[in-house]
Amino acid sequence: MTISIEEMATFCKAKGFVYQDSEIYGSLSGFWDFGPLGVELKNNIKQHWWKTFVQNRQDVVGMDGSIITHRKIWEASGHADCFADLILTCAKCKNKLRADIHIEEVLNIPGDGLTAEQVNDIVEKNNLKCQKCNGAFLKVNDFNLMFETQVGPSKEKTNTTFLRPETAQLIFADFHLIKENARLKLPFGIAQIGKSFRNEISPRDFLFRTREFEQMEIEFFVHPDRINECPFFNEVKDMKINIITSAMQQKKQKHKEITVDKLTEFTSKWHAYWLSINYKWFLDLGIKPENIRIREHLEKELAHYAGACFDLEYNFPFGWKEIHGNADRTQFDIKQHVKASGKDINVYDEETKEKIIPYVASEPSQGVERAFLSFMFDAYNHDPENKERNWVVLKLHPKLTPIKVAVFPLVNKLNDKAKEIFNLLKTEFVCTYDRGGAIGRRYARADERGIPCCVTIDFDTIEKDNSVTIRDRDTTEQVRVKIPELKKFLREALEK
Amino acid sequence: MTISIEEMATFCKAKGFVYQDSEIYGSLSGFWDFGPLGVELKNNIKQHWWKTFVQNRQDVVGMDGSIITHRKIWEASGHADCFADLILTCAKCKNKLRADIHIEEVLNIPGDGLTAEQVNDIVEKNNLKCQKCNGAFLKVNDFNLMFETQVGPSKEKTNTTFLRPETAQLIFADFHLIKENARLKLPFGIAQIGKSFRNEISPRDFLFRTREFEQMEIEFFVHPDRINECPFFNEVKDMKINIITSAMQQKKQKHKEITVDKLTEFTSKWHAYWLSINYKWFLDLGIKPENIRIREHLEKELAHYAGACFDLEYNFPFGWKEIHGNADRTQFDIKQHVKASGKDINVYDEETKEKIIPYVASEPSQGVERAFLSFMFDAYNHDPENKERNWVVLKLHPKLTPIKVAVFPLVNKLNDKAKEIFNLLKTEFVCTYDRGGAIGRRYARADERGIPCCVTIDFDTIEKDNSVTIRDRDTTEQVRVKIPELKKFLREALEK
Repeated sequence: MTISIEEMATFCKAKGFVYQDSEIYGSLSGFWDFGPLGVELKNNIKQHWWKTFVQNRQDVVGMDGSIITHRKIWEASGHADCFADLILTCAKCKNKLRADIHIEEVLNIPGDGLTAEQVNDIVEKNNLKCQKCNGAFLKVNDFNLMFETQVGPSKEKTNTTFLRPETAQLIFADFHLIKENARLKLPFGIAQIGKSFRNEISPRDFLFRTREFEQMEIEFFVHPDRINECPFFNEVKDMKINIITSAMQQKKQKHKEITVDKLTEFTSKWHAYWLSINYKWFLDLGIKPENIRIREHLEKELAHYAGACFDLEYNFPFGWKEIHGNADRTQFDIKQHVKASGKDINVYDEETKEKIIPYVASEPSQGVERAFLSFMFDAYNHDPENKERNWVVLKLHPKLTPIKVAVFPLVNKLNDKAKEIFNLLKTEFVCTYDRGGAIGRRYARADERGIPCCVTIDFDTIEKDNSVTIRDRDTTEQVRVKIPELKKFLREALEK
Repeated sequence: MTISIEEMATFCKAKGFVYQDSEIYGSLSGFWDFGPLGVELKNNIKQHWWKTFVQNRQDVVGMDGSIITHRKIWEASGHADCFADLILTCAKCKNKLRADIHIEEVLNIPGDGLTAEQVNDIVEKNNLKCQKCNGAFLKVNDFNLMFETQVGPSKEKTNTTFLRPETAQLIFADFHLIKENARLKLPFGIAQIGKSFRNEISPRDFLFRTREFEQMEIEFFVHPDRINECPFFNEVKDMKINIITSAMQQKKQKHKEITVDKLTEFTSKWHAYWLSINYKWFLDLGIKPENIRIREHLEKELAHYAGACFDLEYNFPFGWKEIHGNADRTQFDIKQHVKASGKDINVYDEETKEKIIPYVASEPSQGVERAFLSFMFDAYNHDPENKERNWVVLKLHPKLTPIKVAVFPLVNKLNDKAKEIFNLLKTEFVCTYDRGGAIGRRYARADERGIPCCVTIDFDTIEKDNSVTIRDRDTTEQVRVKIPELKKFLREALEK
């Protein structure tokens, strides 16, 4: 059974995954708090990403930059001037709407990439009016999406700066320092996880479009003449992916399956490689292959810095939507910072004996909240026909799921033994202890929270066989395991 | 050899731990970026704290609230009105100084807790002048330490809010939701790690006083009549701690050693328990016992909400300074939010069958950056007399240190075998690979980066004994270990 985004938000609140921020004060639109289960899922997503793309690789190092940073960074990057959405404002009731989204919804034509002039034109030709009060719209103006704030006690303009709207620029601004002291040679990547802020006009769709969110980003730098020299390409070239190219979108075709090899018809080998290992990251964590695809950007969607750009999209109940963006960012950003700072940011190429500006062949970039949402939708199972299991079973991958093991004493008398088992396991696995209600009720509670293994202590445990019953969330199968073998069993069960 | 805070900042930059934010644009005072090693150390501190105080405990759950939140939260908490520092401004050159710090430095009298009136009085009586231009100071006024920003496109006052100056209030604001869906009964705690922002007038001392920092906080709630009923107290009562009480400070005495048992003369058992396990957390991660102490707050330092308050202090080169604050926060905050929101936030006590407002017996609160700094100072070893080892040895605890294992091929010919070992180890341990320069130079590089184990592959490895040499950072001892036993050996070496 599929559920809507609103039903998912309700489920997430009820089980302690996600709450609206400041709910007791009527909440603040576009901001969300993560509850006891949500914070664990979010941390697991971040840690697994970091392990895969930073710690397990020799060619990527990490960093963690600050959220408030110098305004000159945002002037150099172009964000201070161009980072804007076009806003339709009703002249009468002052209702405000994002122009691109409103035009898409009302006229069913693509709104992405429209200029202010084009929007004003469309509004006039189609005689669009405010849907609340039927008032006319004012001409659109740019509205900068960055949150502004003031650093220090003086109210001068030079003390005004912004909360970062992306983590990427911090990587470019620190590039020369990191390259030096991590002793890096091209090709290499710099990764960062951290919060970014965008003052969205219409935050919507639960965690999908928020004003405060967390990004996981890598800038992967290569020699500008070697964007096709990827030594790992063979590892991925036969992997199957779903793709919808720009041409297919224009012909209104559905996505199709190709091998990664074919992707190089549309972009460089390094870019194709990074796209495919990010695609694989989602599959390895349980996303169903039919729910993910690569979408090539249409030409008019391309950002001012991008050579080629692809999204990974997830099949949400409200449509295929971006969960990962991946641009070939060319040499744009480093060049901008060279120009703005006057600093000589480059790398020395030992082969050609010359200084070069590195080329960003790939920028894997994704929001933690969107990954969170796609994993939740993919894991959500509810079969109302199933009389024996008429509750939600949240089949999150064991690596991601917040709690790995639940320990139950069959009856209260067995509490001491069950506590002993709990203490044995808790330092290695994130565990919960539950002694409330019938065992069936406890299984249901564990299933709804995505707990893969339930360990029940019964009278046989202490009187007969020194074993416990382990019940599997996905199959409901139960097996009997000796206590001395329990840790090893769980370790293997949770590795899958 | 002890080093100054400035020397530590230089070391941290050179080795890739910490950089000034926006350095290419002249930097922004009070903001710092973490480099490749710094981000790993910071993550390890956070993860170890979370594992100790959240995942390994049955009575604490986590959450992760948003940074931008409703202004009513800060009105209810008192931050919108009272969260201010007193600023001395020179009438002539406009130089700005924090009044409390300036008075302490110039007159050598305690500046903490002074009111605006008292400051103006002291300035007049002592005829204090600006040290830059000898100008007179203006009368002091309050300056709110919260960063302000605007949410949404309208510039109305109701859309103005703040970046959170502490994580604690998010815990209070979400208390009723978390209590419900985590099925918690008193006593229990709610923990959070996340960034907070304070617009400090004089950010200083490297990572010690910054404008953007990360907090690790717990609010531990108990029944107001049971703040002395701590079932775990026996586990800690004989533990030895250094303490300097309020009375000892007034008599200008040095700290002394007592047992935790004695601490209950100054506060509740629950409070003493949480103080001591946080103290122990630092010791377990390698902080030398002589460098940490508990300091009781003087009466005039107590915040408007606090019953009793203690700091853990570290013996920095610039003095004993707070690395952890721990207040008995009474029922203040929940009561404030009940009043401001009109919501009925309470817990039902099954014994007495009544609704009660829970009591915060302890609020363990610490900045990640200050913990980072204390671990760095404690681990920093440099003996200029030692001719054989005339470099820095960073003896970070294996659990915290960024890189656990370095793999070296003795000569380039052994690269293939060394890569094989590297690939064997990298999924379990954070590893680095280094084949640059003489082996001694590589040991020095590893020592400076705090790598506990160096694994060298030589000709005997492939020709004779299928073994490698492991060299210990702290003792420089070398042992020969068979490759099939390598992982087990490292696992044990890194557990210490």
